[in-house]
This record gives sequence, structure tokens and C-alpha cells, in this order.
Amino acid sequence: MIKIGLYGYGNIAKGVECAIMQNEDMCLTSVFTRRDPSTVKVMTEGVSVYHTDDILNHKDEIDVLVMCGGSATDLPEQTPKMAEHFNVVDSFDTHKRIPEHFSNVDEKAKKGNKVAIISVGWDPGMFSLLRLYGGAILPEGADYTFWGKGVSQGHSDAIRRIDGVIDARQYTIPVDSALEAVRSGSQPQLTTRQKHTRECFVVVEEGADKERIEREIVTMKNYFDEYDTTVNFISMEELQKNHSGIPHGGFVIRTGKTGKNKENNHVIEYSLKLDSNPEFTSSVIVAYARAAYRLNKEGDNGCKTVFDIAPKYLSVKSNEELRASLL
Amino acid sequence: MIKIGLYGYGNIAKGVECAIMQNEDMCLTSVFTRRDPSTVKVMTEGVSVYHTDDILNHKDEIDVLVMCGGSATDLPEQTPKMAEHFNVVDSFDTHKRIPEHFSNVDEKAKKGNKVAIISVGWDPGMFSLLRLYGGAILPEGADYTFWGKGVSQGHSDAIRRIDGVIDARQYTIPVDSALEAVRSGSQPQLTTRQKHTRECFVVVEEGADKERIEREIVTMKNYFDEYDTTVNFISMEELQKNHSGIPHGGFVIRTGKTGKNKENNHVIEYSLKLDSNPEFTSSVIVAYARAAYRLNKEGDNGCKTVFDIAPKYLSVKSNEELRASLL
Repeated sequence: MIKIGLYGYGNIAKGVECAIMQNEDMCLTSVFTRRDPSTVKVMTEGVSVYHTDDILNHKDEIDVLVMCGGSATDLPEQTPKMAEHFNVVDSFDTHKRIPEHFSNVDEKAKKGNKVAIISVGWDPGMFSLLRLYGGAILPEGADYTFWGKGVSQGHSDAIRRIDGVIDARQYTIPVDSALEAVRSGSQPQLTTRQKHTRECFVVVEEGADKERIEREIVTMKNYFDEYDTTVNFISMEELQKNHSGIPHGGFVIRTGKTGKNKENNHVIEYSLKLDSNPEFTSSVIVAYARAAYRLNKEGDNGCKTVFDIAPKYLSVKSNEELRASLL
Repeated sequence: MIKIGLYGYGNIAKGVECAIMQNEDMCLTSVFTRRDPSTVKVMTEGVSVYHTDDILNHKDEIDVLVMCGGSATDLPEQTPKMAEHFNVVDSFDTHKRIPEHFSNVDEKAKKGNKVAIISVGWDPGMFSLLRLYGGAILPEGADYTFWGKGVSQGHSDAIRRIDGVIDARQYTIPVDSALEAVRSGSQPQLTTRQKHTRECFVVVEEGADKERIEREIVTMKNYFDEYDTTVNFISMEELQKNHSGIPHGGFVIRTGKTGKNKENNHVIEYSLKLDSNPEFTSSVIVAYARAAYRLNKEGDNGCKTVFDIAPKYLSVKSNEELRASLL
């Protein structure tokens, strides 16, 4: 059994906890929190909750530590620190800062002779893989990533910070005509506005100035100003009834040409339709936790990404079984 | 530059030759044929054609030898033989015989300290990878592979062998309602007949008994008897005008559930729409030829499949570039 520890206990951690129950070769052993451990109640029987300050006293209980904090401030500090002592997996998703994060984690993981796999999930993660495979197979082509339909937490939070707003949910939606243009193989140049629209459901305080709030949303720099955004004001009941899930998904499409005169067109399309964004991310993380464990057992160390991991390491099946049943 | 040799010069070899032109780090150096070399004309300037009997005299010209024969009789014999002397890639696609082929090739590749990658293409190949990734991420689920719309060479050949038939083209077509049922996440049990239909375009001799021919097609064991098959008799002109391409494609769909009470449903879908089946297969082969070269340079040897190859080895980009641009 691969013994998994969780660093943090939010949405991703709970998703990992559920995913472990579906993987026969793994068990959850311990949860570490910055809160008072006595206030944290986990789902799995027999799992202890400790304060993060005590984590080094529990090294023997853990084969892989899953880092469940946020990308803004938690993971840049926590993942390198823990990578010196544990095999770790994180879902660091600030694309621009990945090279910096990689190098910080790599140094510590090598020092501690541990394997660290960063930026695991679906984007970065599975979508990154599909971009790599697509580009390697069809070098003369273009790739396109579309997100949604799904809830963007960051955009929902941004709306909540507007004066007079009580709660909000923002959906990112890919534009059908853009998807069709891409699938045609014509390799269109698409602007931000042409690729996605944004739809907002907003609950406001009684008597709030809806016109002002709508204007503040649609003109918000970096979040909404480059998109066609629609704003719907709804009641708290409606928000809770119809918008309480955190679905997401998207598309990676690579089109390219082959042949002596580039006469043949090919379309590779990968899509995800997810009822729960954090639970799917967690399911990917758990598969890569298996890889981290196995690679370290083989003597490997240092920081890795999904690009560095041979697919066989993710599956519970033996290599013989994989070749006989899935190839 | 990675120096590529071709063993055989049919459809796959020509596709590899075209694909090499799109990859800046590779060049084609030599072609080996069982025919009289003077009768074989290749597209690329400056490439020599030799008889396969002479191949061991040209070891220095080749970093990776791409095996371009057929799976029925050529590759089971040729790939192990060559794997002792060259890094090789083949597209062996008889799913049931892969374990046996793997073990034959592995023995020789290890003996010669070479890397051999077998069963490369899209199925086996990319579809296999997607089945593995999907199952590792969503262990409680089901996967479905659909093929088409595309030309099946084997089925077209089978029709051609019927008395009175001059030429034929057979398309395998996935059934839309089956695809939709799978995408719903309901994990339906589907029979062979429910998943695909077969459509045939047949040119017959003047005065041939069309009724008999149609009956022979639709009742043909292992090829058509388990499918709903439609037969269209057309003229040779029409066949050449409308059915001369070899398009193919298909879908790998994995659906599965997550959550404490399995309340969340997820759909992973990968699809290919290919104008040229052999050229796409060749494009995948060329990416894996790069991997074979690099792995052997790192000191690795033995037989591999797509499951054993970390994605980074397929791309011409450096690891730093991949992390910065695609992750």
C-alpha cells in the first residue's frame, strides 16, 4: 500500500481523499493542517490529523505527501520546503511562474533524494500533455485551448469584491463558432473575445445600484474587459439552487497538415466535461502520486512535471497487463 | 541531426519520408527494399536505396531504422532481426500478438544494446495512451473505443476477394446514438452491432450477380456478419472520384464517477479526424523515432511501447522550453 499524507484540507484535499478510496493500492494515513487539528474532521476512518508544525515527526507514515494549498502564496513556499523530506505532488497552476517554482522544488528534492511532481491536474496537467503530444505528431499545425463551460473561482471572487455584491458565480463559455472554425483545420487567428464569453450570476444587496455593478463587472481590467460578458442578477435562493456546483472542462485541439504537398489535414481533439473541477484535479494528482512513489523506489529524484513521467507509472496495472489489455 | 533509415517503401514509409521533412532535427539517409533497388524511386534528394540484404553494411548511416512492413508476416520476423543492430520503431498492430512480439523484440534489442519501440501509431498508439491515462485517472469508470468514419483496408480487401468484384472500399462508421449514450456517462453495455455500421462501395464485373455478392458480403464471418452493413454498387469512375482517399479516425471515451457518494460524473473524450490514415500513423512513428534515439543515447535499451516513453522525449523542444511554453 502506498501511504498518502495530505498537506492542507480544502477542496483538493477532500477530492484526493475520495480518489484514494477508488485506488486499491493506496491509503490515506495522515492529514496536516495549519488550523487547530482538533477542529478538522476527515472522512476516512482511522486517519490522524496533526498540525503542520509536527510533520517531520511523521515521516515514516508517508510515502507521498500531496500538497493541497493554493498557488498564490501556499505552494511556492510549502512545496520546496516539503520536497526535501517527502515525495510530493502539487497542482501549482500559475503558468507563468512554473519555471521558477520548478527550479526551487528541484533543488530541495535533489537535496533530500525525493521525487516531486509539480503542476499536476488538467490545466496544467492533462491539457499540457495533449498540447505536447499534438505538437510532436503534427509539427506543421496549430493548437488551441478552450476552457469551459465552467466556473472560474478567480472571476467569481473578483465580482464578490465589488461594493454591493453579496455573492456571485462566473461561467467561462467557449464560443461554438470558434470551436467549429478550429475543427475545420483552417488554423484561424482568434482573439480573446472570439474564443470565450463570460456569464455572471450575481446576488446584490437590497437597493444596490445594479447598473453601476454591471458596469464595474464588464469593464474590469484583466478579468472581463476583453470579453463579451453578460450579467444576470438573481436571488440568493436561485444561486444556491442552480449554481452551487463547480463544473468545468474544456478542449485542446491540434490541427495540422501532412503529405508531400501538405494536402492532408488532421484534427486531434481532447475534451473534458467535469461535474467537479477539484475532484477531477484530485484524481489526476492521485495517479501521479503513484508515479512519484514508484520513481523514487527506482532511485529517481528531483522535480518532474507530467512531461517527464512515462504513462505506465500512473496505472495500478503491471506492464504486462497494460500491454495485453490496453495497447 | 537524427539519421533515419526506412525498411520497406510502401504507404507508411512514404508517410515517414514526408513527416521527416517537417522535423528540423531529422533527415532520411537510406531506404532498404526487398525489390530491385534500381526500381525504387524515393522523393527525397540524395537518399540511397539499397537491398535489405545489404543493410548491415550501412549501420553508420542510421540512428533509427523505421520498420515499414505489414503486421501479418513482415514485422514479426523483421523487427526482432533488426532490433539487434539498430534502434527501431514499428507499427505492429495485431493487438492479440503484441505480448509475443514484445518479448521477441525485447530479447534482441537487449542483446544488441538498442532501443526498440513497437506498436506505434494511433491504435495501437495514441488511443492506447488515452485508454491508459483515462483508466488511471478515473478508476471507477468504463472506456469505449470507436473507429471511423474511415476506410478499413482489411474489409475492403475481403470484399475484393469475392467472385465478380473488381474493386471495393469499406467504411467503418461509429453509430451516433451509441456515442451519445457513452458521452452521457451512463456506461452502457454496447454490442458490436450497436457501436459501428459498415458501408461498402463495390465495383462489379458486367453481368455479375449483385444479389449474390451483396449476400456474400453482409454474411461474411468475422468481417460483416455481426454488423449492419449497407452495400452500394457503383462504377469504377465513381469509386476513383469519390473514394480514392484513405481517411480514418475515431474516439476514445472514458467516463467515470468521483466523490464520496460517486455523485460527480466526468467525461474524457479524445478524437481523431484524419485525411490520411498512413500519413498520420507515420507522423506518430517519427515522433517516437526521436524518442528511441534519445533513450538509446541515454544508455537505455530493450523493447518499449508508448506506455514506457515519457512524453518529453517526443518533442524537438528542450525540457525548459516545454515547461515554459506548453505546461
